[in-house]
Amino acid sequence: MDTTDSRVLFRRRASRITVAAHSFGIFAAILLLVWLLHYREGIDLDSKNAYRIFNVHPFLMLVGFIFLSGEGMMAFKTVPADRVVRKFVHMFINLISLCLGIVGLHAVFKFHDKQNIADMYSLHSWIGMGTFCLFILQWLFGFVLFMFPKGSASTRASALPWHVCGGRALLYMAICAAETGLMEKVTFLGLNHGRELLLINFTGLAVLLFGLSVDLSIALARFT
Amino acid sequence: MDTTDSRVLFRRRASRITVAAHSFGIFAAILLLVWLLHYREGIDLDSKNAYRIFNVHPFLMLVGFIFLSGEGMMAFKTVPADRVVRKFVHMFINLISLCLGIVGLHAVFKFHDKQNIADMYSLHSWIGMGTFCLFILQWLFGFVLFMFPKGSASTRASALPWHVCGGRALLYMAICAAETGLMEKVTFLGLNHGRELLLINFTGLAVLLFGLSVDLSIALARFT
Ligand code: HEM
Ligand code: HEM
Repeated sequence: MDTTDSRVLFRRRASRITVAAHSFGIFAAILLLVWLLHYREGIDLDSKNAYRIFNVHPFLMLVGFIFLSGEGMMAFKTVPADRVVRKFVHMFINLISLCLGIVGLHAVFKFHDKQNIADMYSLHSWIGMGTFCLFILQWLFGFVLFMFPKGSASTRASALPWHVCGGRALLYMAICAAETGLMEKVTFLGLNHGRELLLINFTGLAVLLFGLSVDLSIALARFT
Repeated sequence: MDTTDSRVLFRRRASRITVAAHSFGIFAAILLLVWLLHYREGIDLDSKNAYRIFNVHPFLMLVGFIFLSGEGMMAFKTVPADRVVRKFVHMFINLISLCLGIVGLHAVFKFHDKQNIADMYSLHSWIGMGTFCLFILQWLFGFVLFMFPKGSASTRASALPWHVCGGRALLYMAICAAETGLMEKVTFLGLNHGRELLLINFTGLAVLLFGLSVDLSIALARFT
């Protein structure tokens, strides 16, 4: 397919839902930043204040991991270029989101270390770690199957449903991890009324709406 | 299509994934019951002990609402009968799950009333109530569109993608509600080690795996 063809295709496909997805994602990121910078201690991986280290975790998991991988999933619709280029962008954004996710996980383990808190006890950490490990596998399988020029067309075709459906399931798992993380932090803080709680709840809602709109933009287009 | 045809279709389609889904669902229900009956106060909507009233909430939301609506979603694959019968079963199971969900919500409001706790403050309650209201809308739209004999074929066809994709999104939203609910309760109880925590975490994991397998059984079969 040449560039002109794919540009036409791109314009036809760029649906309103992807616009909603970008907006909810950016909205969630802004709300989270207001929370961490204004109501909480700020964000710093090398701080003496353990809470500033912790705050790197929600920031990178949400803005690095979830937002970027959602954008990566939509790259086939939103990048106005050849299919090959879009595939590369898809792979590359997901790689960056994976790297930022690793730093975000490092932050919370460092925080637990500093505070002498046990690791991996909570439902949140189980869902989060499970999601992240499956995400790495998904990326590796995708890379080997779809980026190597030697991959056979029939293998690719039979792996594609699993790659697409699995990717969407992983997005929802990541959303679940984020919501349980927010919920846990709110309950730790003992918030049950007031502005900070509303801010966090709206952050959670925006993340959920981001996930839903990314998913629907893909699911509706692929419907049989 | 006559009954024999659809039976053959049914057998061909009844995939291993729906078997996994049933199993994870039943497993989650058993773990939840062990938790509520053995570790907690038991389940009773008319008790003097407010916690017995509360426990109706997770029980009915998980076993009534989530498990039944997941089974309802899979009815088109798992019920060995005509399409019309399967459609009716699909509608009816989702109606029962809706009713049990209402009782489950009533239970937690009754609990909050008894304990003088404010209503609808948490992210969990926002996600839960949002999911439930959209679920009712989804059921009503589905009923009007697909159960009335007068519905035009073209309206049905253009609404179907939204009904199917929306239904799957709602399932994930309900899973999110359940996970945040479990997370909130665990943090309220101050559990950070021990058997009860492991039991609750495994319940959450089983619910997640139920949701994933219900979703994949539908998504993979409908893939283009
Ligand atoms: C997809 C995104 C996320 C993933 C994969 C994830 C993963 C994890 C993991 C694996 C841990 C355990 C670390 C340890 O045991 O040392 C953890 C801890 C934690 N996370 Fe997240 N997280 C995510 C998002 C969030 C968000 C958005 C928040 C919001 C504040 C959050 C709050 C917490 C808290 C409070 C802890 C410490 C308590 C605990 O171990 O459960 N997480 N996270
Ligand atoms: C899809 C399933 C669920 C839905 C739709 C849902 C919905 C709700 C709603 C609307 C409330 C607010 C009631 C009020 O403010 O008076 C609530 C409260 C609560 N729910 Fe759930 N829930 C679900 C599952 C669960 C599960 C599985 C648990 C696990 C224990 C749970 C634990 C709680 C707790 C602890 C509260 C009281 C604190 C609060 O208001 O957040 N929920 N739920």
